[in-house]
Amino acid sequence: MIHVTVWNEFRHEKIDSKAKEVYPEGIHQQIATFLEEDNFTVQTATLDEIEHGLTLEVLENTDVLVWWGHIAHQEVTDDIVKRVHQRVLEGMGLVVLHSAHMSKIFMKLMGTSCDLKWREAEENCRIWNVNPSHPIVEGIGEYIELEKEEMYGEHFDIPAPDELIFISWYPGGEVFRSGCTYRRGNGKIFYFQPGHETYPSFYNEGVQKVIRNGIRWCKPTQNSYPVYGHHEPLETISELGGRQQ
Amino acid sequence: MIHVTVWNEFRHEKIDSKAKEVYPEGIHQQIATFLEEDNFTVQTATLDEIEHGLTLEVLENTDVLVWWGHIAHQEVTDDIVKRVHQRVLEGMGLVVLHSAHMSKIFMKLMGTSCDLKWREAEENCRIWNVNPSHPIVEGIGEYIELEKEEMYGEHFDIPAPDELIFISWYPGGEVFRSGCTYRRGNGKIFYFQPGHETYPSFYNEGVQKVIRNGIRWCKPTQNSYPVYGHHEPLETISELGGRQQ
Amino acid sequence: MIHVTVWNEFRHEKIDSKAKEVYPEGIHQQIATFLEEDNFTVQTATLDEIEHGLTLEVLENTDVLVWWGHIAHQEVTDDIVKRVHQRVLEGMGLVVLHSAHMSKIFMKLMGTSCDLKWREAEENCRIWNVNPSHPIVEGIGEYIELEKEEMYGEHFDIPAPDELIFISWYPGGEVFRSGCTYRRGNGKIFYFQPGHETYPSFYNEGVQKVIRNGIRWCKPTQNSYPVYGHHEPLETISELGGRQQ
Amino acid sequence: MIHVTVWNEFRHEKIDSKAKEVYPEGIHQQIATFLEEDNFTVQTATLDEIEHGLTLEVLENTDVLVWWGHIAHQEVTDDIVKRVHQRVLEGMGLVVLHSAHMSKIFMKLMGTSCDLKWREAEENCRIWNVNPSHPIVEGIGEYIELEKEEMYGEHFDIPAPDELIFISWYPGGEVFRSGCTYRRGNGKIFYFQPGHETYPSFYNEGVQKVIRNGIRWCKPTQNSYPVYGHHEPLETISELGGRQQ
Repeated sequence: MIHVTVWNEFRHEKIDSKAKEVYPEGIHQQIATFLEEDNFTVQTATLDEIEHGLTLEVLENTDVLVWWGHIAHQEVTDDIVKRVHQRVLEGMGLVVLHSAHMSKIFMKLMGTSCDLKWREAEENCRIWNVNPSHPIVEGIGEYIELEKEEMYGEHFDIPAPDELIFISWYPGGEVFRSGCTYRRGNGKIFYFQPGHETYPSFYNEGVQKVIRNGIRWCKPTQNSYPVYGHHEPLETISELGGRQQ
Repeated sequence: MIHVTVWNEFRHEKIDSKAKEVYPEGIHQQIATFLEEDNFTVQTATLDEIEHGLTLEVLENTDVLVWWGHIAHQEVTDDIVKRVHQRVLEGMGLVVLHSAHMSKIFMKLMGTSCDLKWREAEENCRIWNVNPSHPIVEGIGEYIELEKEEMYGEHFDIPAPDELIFISWYPGGEVFRSGCTYRRGNGKIFYFQPGHETYPSFYNEGVQKVIRNGIRWCKPTQNSYPVYGHHEPLETISELGGRQQ
Repeated sequence: MIHVTVWNEFRHEKIDSKAKEVYPEGIHQQIATFLEEDNFTVQTATLDEIEHGLTLEVLENTDVLVWWGHIAHQEVTDDIVKRVHQRVLEGMGLVVLHSAHMSKIFMKLMGTSCDLKWREAEENCRIWNVNPSHPIVEGIGEYIELEKEEMYGEHFDIPAPDELIFISWYPGGEVFRSGCTYRRGNGKIFYFQPGHETYPSFYNEGVQKVIRNGIRWCKPTQNSYPVYGHHEPLETISELGGRQQ
Repeated sequence: MIHVTVWNEFRHEKIDSKAKEVYPEGIHQQIATFLEEDNFTVQTATLDEIEHGLTLEVLENTDVLVWWGHIAHQEVTDDIVKRVHQRVLEGMGLVVLHSAHMSKIFMKLMGTSCDLKWREAEENCRIWNVNPSHPIVEGIGEYIELEKEEMYGEHFDIPAPDELIFISWYPGGEVFRSGCTYRRGNGKIFYFQPGHETYPSFYNEGVQKVIRNGIRWCKPTQNSYPVYGHHEPLETISELGGRQQ
């Protein structure tokens, strides 16, 4: 049983009538709904809650954190970002969705600007699977097609992904590395492009499948945490230092 | 339930008294034994069986193939190598152990000589985990220590692994990339260094755990196989080709 | 001074009037022409020459081999493929163009089918630079646009590239990893997609720049070749094997 | 001509008699000396200078910045770290030496703790070349041996390197990924392990060669900087969005 916390900025859905129409209870609730149909224990957290809903206790009980944010990245306090960062390094998984590419936590983990090209133009988009043996694409086939998605285009200023999973095509002539995995410390991270607040991408079966697979892939590996700092030798070294005769 | 076939050359254990003593029923039987304790369905196959025990039917019913070979790589027929290769590209997992680094099937999948330095000197060896979030190291901790293992040293002539999992230390002054993953076609491959025929490495609990984890990691992803060849456009292209005004 | 050998199958340009019109002296001559403008020593070789023009002497004097082939991959003898393969492992660079993705030498180095989707439909194509700090993209900017190129689409059955340099966009809705680097043995390999025999891609300034940069990137590293086989310890190991008290 | 700035914390060499003995004019001066023998334009900068010697003007005229720090990482101001970070994303190369693995700038670029095991015990160390075709190992051969170096051991908490160049062996039983490359934004980064302040590693010919090669590898690629933000379509998209009939 994987414990998932779905974090959402939850601002667009309160103030933007289009976003409200598509996600009346918030993006987090829609994600929680399709996760609960599966074998996950799900809770949600949002920006305007105390500590953004991400108390030490919540994070300690989170195997995988799903993150959606857009217009209020700067309102996430540095203390909470540091806390989430520390938990990722300890092993918590992180699924980063759509405009969260410029969230403080993703930028802190990547070390780059995470900037890109974008356009909202009611365009369709085709998300090509370029890693057919990866568990994240289980059941996906060759591509996912969305009738409408925000265009995100290269250059995407990220480190080269550990594994490139998806590349998106847009009719305006752009491409985008839209599914990327990373490891940082003991934690696994999956970035996935879909999810504009006024488009119904989180109702798409393929998108839902990828997020579920992504959460499973991100779940912590049970192991002792590496030990750092001063280290006594494991071998007798007094006799060493001389070359073989 | 993962269907595993353990393939062994099974020659040393018939002719070499030391190997016979350590693995009286063959390396394949010892591997099968510790796999059966887990949630795997296991069968074995050996070089001297008809079609080396790797009939079309056997391979079609194999999710993950484990391969051990050493002195008789050249006796594996090219037809069977081609058949195994095809099954890996279709999605079958492959766990390559120890001296199978120079098996025909591994070399065909890698495209390099797969050569290395080696020495049999009753040395100890320490296999460091350098990828703590990877499922293959689940339950392993910081390292596995073996009292005796054959030294394998760099340079190891392999493509840069997709994921480097282990690096080994040897008292004679050498290091070795001893746990490496690759993807080829729809298939996943895991190379793991331990397993000299006269040393009891396959009785070591850590080695057993890694092989079990490796098999789970290698299991096929359920998906449609990609389509290749001539491809009709998915978008109307007659209006295209002109640049935006 | 880099010694380049440009190898071309040189069949289309003899029998196909369109190819003849675009490349009257053969694709190899056009490539040689724009390389000679730069700081390279260039020779050419073609399929129908003795030993396909790739004698031991020619290869020994080649720093980087450029390869174009399409309809006659099977006519390249296995002996010559083996010879080229050996030279790559020893350090010779290899630039693989367009339909040479299914040449014997590229498949042997990759270990996969190297298959893909394709379509000849007079489409335009946009080759996006996704690796802006790489020397192969020096002077290229954000993308290269070609008025006409054959569509090559995912899934492209290659190992994950060591470095992904370009991703192509096609109007029919496809994407393609069109610039990929690999290392095999001591050798460097660069695959680049453009170059259909009836389209003038090798007259395009951007394409020419990439091939020149690719050759420079592929040039051999001066070093001693690694030693393989039995290896005496570099440290005194008699006192070892016991753990630190 | 590559413009190199060698930055040194320059504290040990003022207060620690052993460090003073080995590097009487500071580590930066020793590095500058062996770089000046080559085709580089070299300047130095140290922590206690105004703006740590890293004014906007200095950084704008720096192609590659070499960084050594240890006991005073926290004294480097966040403003200067941000400035150096921005320059790396714009294309400046960065060579990170030894204990600078925990410098603010390296940690910011990596997104991890960059922690490791360490020990000062007058041990020898063998730095194995595991990437023989890489320009950074030009002229190095199979390994570099140092009579004395501080032990740095795994797990090293870094992202998986884009390219792994060296793995070090230590007599106490440890291994370390001691040569690693990364790309961040338009910039290239090379981490190299040797260089403890009381050992003469920067007088070692092999170490010097690697640092020179590393600087050459890190030099900026001449190109336009990618454009981010709102992006007009490059293709006419009004006719699109419908699937092929």
